[in-house]
Amino acid sequence: MALPTQESPKTHHLSNITSQTRVHHEYVPETLSQARTEHSFPDDLHPVNSNGLEKTSSHLRNTRTKLGLHPGASISEDHDIAERQDFLWSRIRLVLREPFAEFWGVFIMVLFGDGSVAQVLLSAGQASAPGGDGFGPYQSISWGWGLGVMLGIYVAGDSGAYLNPAITFSNCLYRQLPWRRFPMYLLAQFLGGFCASGVVYANYINAINKYEGHGIRTVPPSRTATAGIFCTYPQPFLTKPSQFFSEFIASAVLMFVIFALKDSSNNGVPKSDKWFPLALFFLIFGLGACFGWETGYAINLARDFGPRLMSYIVGYGHEVWSAGGYYFWIPMVAPFCGCVFGGFLYDVFIYTGPSPANSPWMGLKQLVRPDFAWQVRKERAKKAREAGMV
Amino acid sequence: MALPTQESPKTHHLSNITSQTRVHHEYVPETLSQARTEHSFPDDLHPVNSNGLEKTSSHLRNTRTKLGLHPGASISEDHDIAERQDFLWSRIRLVLREPFAEFWGVFIMVLFGDGSVAQVLLSAGQASAPGGDGFGPYQSISWGWGLGVMLGIYVAGDSGAYLNPAITFSNCLYRQLPWRRFPMYLLAQFLGGFCASGVVYANYINAINKYEGHGIRTVPPSRTATAGIFCTYPQPFLTKPSQFFSEFIASAVLMFVIFALKDSSNNGVPKSDKWFPLALFFLIFGLGACFGWETGYAINLARDFGPRLMSYIVGYGHEVWSAGGYYFWIPMVAPFCGCVFGGFLYDVFIYTGPSPANSPWMGLKQLVRPDFAWQVRKERAKKAREAGMV
Amino acid sequence: MALPTQESPKTHHLSNITSQTRVHHEYVPETLSQARTEHSFPDDLHPVNSNGLEKTSSHLRNTRTKLGLHPGASISEDHDIAERQDFLWSRIRLVLREPFAEFWGVFIMVLFGDGSVAQVLLSAGQASAPGGDGFGPYQSISWGWGLGVMLGIYVAGDSGAYLNPAITFSNCLYRQLPWRRFPMYLLAQFLGGFCASGVVYANYINAINKYEGHGIRTVPPSRTATAGIFCTYPQPFLTKPSQFFSEFIASAVLMFVIFALKDSSNNGVPKSDKWFPLALFFLIFGLGACFGWETGYAINLARDFGPRLMSYIVGYGHEVWSAGGYYFWIPMVAPFCGCVFGGFLYDVFIYTGPSPANSPWMGLKQLVRPDFAWQVRKERAKKAREAGMV
Amino acid sequence: MALPTQESPKTHHLSNITSQTRVHHEYVPETLSQARTEHSFPDDLHPVNSNGLEKTSSHLRNTRTKLGLHPGASISEDHDIAERQDFLWSRIRLVLREPFAEFWGVFIMVLFGDGSVAQVLLSAGQASAPGGDGFGPYQSISWGWGLGVMLGIYVAGDSGAYLNPAITFSNCLYRQLPWRRFPMYLLAQFLGGFCASGVVYANYINAINKYEGHGIRTVPPSRTATAGIFCTYPQPFLTKPSQFFSEFIASAVLMFVIFALKDSSNNGVPKSDKWFPLALFFLIFGLGACFGWETGYAINLARDFGPRLMSYIVGYGHEVWSAGGYYFWIPMVAPFCGCVFGGFLYDVFIYTGPSPANSPWMGLKQLVRPDFAWQVRKERAKKAREAGMV
Repeated sequence: MALPTQESPKTHHLSNITSQTRVHHEYVPETLSQARTEHSFPDDLHPVNSNGLEKTSSHLRNTRTKLGLHPGASISEDHDIAERQDFLWSRIRLVLREPFAEFWGVFIMVLFGDGSVAQVLLSAGQASAPGGDGFGPYQSISWGWGLGVMLGIYVAGDSGAYLNPAITFSNCLYRQLPWRRFPMYLLAQFLGGFCASGVVYANYINAINKYEGHGIRTVPPSRTATAGIFCTYPQPFLTKPSQFFSEFIASAVLMFVIFALKDSSNNGVPKSDKWFPLALFFLIFGLGACFGWETGYAINLARDFGPRLMSYIVGYGHEVWSAGGYYFWIPMVAPFCGCVFGGFLYDVFIYTGPSPANSPWMGLKQLVRPDFAWQVRKERAKKAREAGMV
Repeated sequence: MALPTQESPKTHHLSNITSQTRVHHEYVPETLSQARTEHSFPDDLHPVNSNGLEKTSSHLRNTRTKLGLHPGASISEDHDIAERQDFLWSRIRLVLREPFAEFWGVFIMVLFGDGSVAQVLLSAGQASAPGGDGFGPYQSISWGWGLGVMLGIYVAGDSGAYLNPAITFSNCLYRQLPWRRFPMYLLAQFLGGFCASGVVYANYINAINKYEGHGIRTVPPSRTATAGIFCTYPQPFLTKPSQFFSEFIASAVLMFVIFALKDSSNNGVPKSDKWFPLALFFLIFGLGACFGWETGYAINLARDFGPRLMSYIVGYGHEVWSAGGYYFWIPMVAPFCGCVFGGFLYDVFIYTGPSPANSPWMGLKQLVRPDFAWQVRKERAKKAREAGMV
Repeated sequence: MALPTQESPKTHHLSNITSQTRVHHEYVPETLSQARTEHSFPDDLHPVNSNGLEKTSSHLRNTRTKLGLHPGASISEDHDIAERQDFLWSRIRLVLREPFAEFWGVFIMVLFGDGSVAQVLLSAGQASAPGGDGFGPYQSISWGWGLGVMLGIYVAGDSGAYLNPAITFSNCLYRQLPWRRFPMYLLAQFLGGFCASGVVYANYINAINKYEGHGIRTVPPSRTATAGIFCTYPQPFLTKPSQFFSEFIASAVLMFVIFALKDSSNNGVPKSDKWFPLALFFLIFGLGACFGWETGYAINLARDFGPRLMSYIVGYGHEVWSAGGYYFWIPMVAPFCGCVFGGFLYDVFIYTGPSPANSPWMGLKQLVRPDFAWQVRKERAKKAREAGMV
Repeated sequence: MALPTQESPKTHHLSNITSQTRVHHEYVPETLSQARTEHSFPDDLHPVNSNGLEKTSSHLRNTRTKLGLHPGASISEDHDIAERQDFLWSRIRLVLREPFAEFWGVFIMVLFGDGSVAQVLLSAGQASAPGGDGFGPYQSISWGWGLGVMLGIYVAGDSGAYLNPAITFSNCLYRQLPWRRFPMYLLAQFLGGFCASGVVYANYINAINKYEGHGIRTVPPSRTATAGIFCTYPQPFLTKPSQFFSEFIASAVLMFVIFALKDSSNNGVPKSDKWFPLALFFLIFGLGACFGWETGYAINLARDFGPRLMSYIVGYGHEVWSAGGYYFWIPMVAPFCGCVFGGFLYDVFIYTGPSPANSPWMGLKQLVRPDFAWQVRKERAKKAREAGMV
């Protein structure tokens, strides 16, 4: 099917410039639209014949492909990239476009999240505060994480703004995001959380010294513990299965609602992505109000493991790993299980588009019959290669 | 009147794809527009010649009709349903599309709502919390229910997102939603609340054991009662009429404002449905701030009776029914009365579209003269059959 | 200048139905646009050749004109009004369209506002609340009034949603809203506040009896005073000028920001009215955070005098008038002065459209030279008659 | 490249009036779009052949140019400016359009911000408040500043709504806003903060007298200090580098996120400016939750120095300067450093448009080789002159 846009790109450019640069996926015809629902949010930023692909030199395309990224970086077509490819750093930025976006998205998210915990925890009960009772109650933390995610999504638009390895994982599983994207995204997300918690520590080092005593760093259930600023520790009354269940169910809800918000075939309301960041604010705020107590709603490896490693490095000692009965692995593993389960529920009960849940044996055929799985994967890879999406 | 879209569907598809898949009801011509105002929000998702109707096989159409649902399920036209009707589960999902949507919408709403109550109540006063005073104040509950409704609406877009039997009821009464839709919607809504409260219980079972003592489960006015996590109990100083009045007036306000927000002939602001979920957040938050104390603003059978039954089953004893002078029936009955009254007020004072309030004797003629009522109903059923809407 | 819409109304209807029924003022050509800025928000809902005018029978038009309202009621053109003019009540509703809208808008606003005050005040410190400290802090009141205004604007779309006599007044003064609209609007707004506070009283009568003692009703500075639920009382340390100044400056800010939000020539952001209700939520919340202590930010005769009269009637005694040194007149007078001053500031420093501030002697010529004022008024009335706007 | 809009302006006016007056920058063709990204937000309000330019008489143009402003004021084309240039004040308003906008934007921001601090601080613990514990907690201040910025942006749309000299500075540095704009903007912003804090003082003078004692005015760490209402004072445990670091990092985050929100080439979500004010609410709220304790998140010379001077004038004494080890210079200097650093990070890692970071040696070439810098500046000035933007 020939598209008008391909026949007269110039005219199209003049009249539809908005649709191209901003909301171009609002006007995509049938075939592209199909591609969009299949490849979820990040990859729909790379339409098949996109300018990005043409702008990116073949050398850069190769490098990006090796890193597991889409060969063409998504660049606004107003911006003359070619001209700037002479500068070394511009080339680096072009190659690492999505990782940079994920890094800064998670950085902003963790900076606000951990920062708000730090302020609430360290200033608790301070009578000289305006209002006479510290600089923020527990709810301030819900605000911090909620708006941190919201602003992180705005910042990380170039990569699709996953901000969470478990969400990237679910998109690979259910929305045909190529698996080779996963490692670079994971690395960038982890580093974002790691660095941001370092900045929070640097900012609050005086206050921590005052709170715990100079040079003392402890982990819950110590009475003056400050390790909770950086990563999550469970309440002491929880059994191990309950720890896991709490993180699992919170992650499942996270994924379920995100899939609903991103499902353009759901007749629900947001449709345009414009409402997505605000809806995520409410979603994260809600998780903080419902799952914030027992295990601290980590629901994100990058948000928990990155800062945990940082707190270990700056001197909180081996207890960051051993506390809560070696709890640390739960916020690493449970989010993946939970997001996979939440995504499964959504696809089974509501989603009508292409998904393993809409394939033979509800996707399980691929699990139990490796030859069939191999065949499906090969077909998909072939299709992707034809479309130039690698 | 011949519509351009019917003459050249292909062209229309290319140029207006947005309007069809997303905001298709923005461009509906006069006759359909009329249908929309008459059939309220959920049914305007089923235009007369919709693809859903064609896509759904005649066997499935029959099954859906028997269940009281619209014969054609509303499916995004990008999605190739026919292909997937080979899978048993896909067929089930197609048949139960609206019930599934209502179920998950209420599930999300109650999960966040009851979950936030649980966290606030069980962690109250805990000094080791960041900020030193528990994990959330009373307002956290207003947030939980407000955003639970908001996110539930996003999730339940395929069914119109009533999330409340009393609101479904009012739409049948005032907005010509066929009465045969009511039972399935009610069942799905009830089950959503029932299951979600079970998940909340599972998540907080350790914490409840710690709060009440292992295996002890009590109901207000016990000092350590936790039954209030699941459903509402009135303040002890309320007389029975006051209990009823509080729920009644809150439900009336709920329905009044929702009718305003959904009334496309109101020159007020939201118009597009995009603002509806956010406005509902504020509305529910406001009800929690004004009517949250005396009776707990149940205003919803599915939100109150479902979790109440669950709490009875998990062992809170007979007091869940007898507490407050057998209060339990009030949040079952009052929301229906309140929503009917609120809808009546709106239609009498503001609404100019088709409504019983805009018919002879302000709709009462149908009540007191059964023959007239029968005649009106027959005419409406005939019209619906002609339009293929059953 | 002939408009395409006048040449081929049918075509226009098909293609632009959205613009007509919903956002029709987005596409208005130059002359109407001029009219819009001159006649502020409510009257731009009555375009010169609107269907409303044609639909309304000449008898009804006369009645409306006598009441000071625009001769044609603004009705969605989807709705067949003519058919329903047979019913008595439909005719009444048509005649009183704007007053009904203002009434219910203020009703919703005051219900949420006064209701939230009641809950916070009467439940203060209750240990059996979830969280252990009452059902909402002071901030809950800011939420209540903020979202009450927001939802009231949604409800009162048919009248322009002033909800405040002082704002209506400023619009008459600066935005050419005909002065004859003022009395009916004022009456409707007053009654809305009066009735809503009655409902709040009915809802909380048990709780007030428990708080004050049965049948006892007191006014601040009594220690158990509950009169503050209904209307505002000043802090005791305020001098009379400070009382006035606080209400004055809050009203000025209110009007200044509203004029900015409604000024389509301001290059600021909202432009479309869609953001207006949400921005008003923030504005009212902010006034509660900055001016809520000293005098309770009445800034509205309808919100203060209506409920004050109701509280007098239900038995709070003569002190509702005499408290605070006969403070009651300040929230009646200061909002008018403040809104006029705030509107003046905006027009003088920012507004570039038609306004007294953009006329000879900055509008004062009309004040000091009655003959000139008379001439201006006659010209305006003549123009309005020609346009059929009376 | 000839634009259709230039060929047939009349037709264009009829069909695209929305795009011109409201969201005209959504449809700008390539060259203008380029100009927009180069000249950041305020100057894209002055398209090259804008009506503003034609409307403004040459005398006024000269005056504006001398003040460092764009020669043509941005006026809605509906408004007949020429006619009103007869009035002296209308001419003044035309000349000082952007300074007036910045003044009132900062005024609104500081009024709400300082006002909320005053209410929280002075009413702390008051038992007669509804809820029994003062009129707002610390979080009320986050609300005040957040919504103050939001509403300030709405008010100051005509100037681009910088509201912060450090942000203006960064836009000059990275987004080619002409440096000559800077002084007038700075002056207007400073005066806005100065005057608003005076109004807050006038409003709360009785309450301050009651809180501190009549005529007594003290500065932290005095136990009854009220100077913190107006400007920021650091916590006593902070070292000087920590003071600087806290303001620095908060400013960097501010600029980083704003650049993301304003970057139309970022595939993130807001795109249209409509979401900008709301996102800024969340951003400022978040900064209050993370950086509000240690140094009070001044991050703005106009917000801190203006009110500080006012507090010095009204009698808080020399300590307003000397407190915290002559802390006062840090909120003057650190925001500039922080914003420059934050903007640098964004441009280096994410921005693909024209920026010093996308020029040889990452912009440092201009720093170390003055001759090169001179050449670049000359070229840019030449280009601006040709485009009539001076």
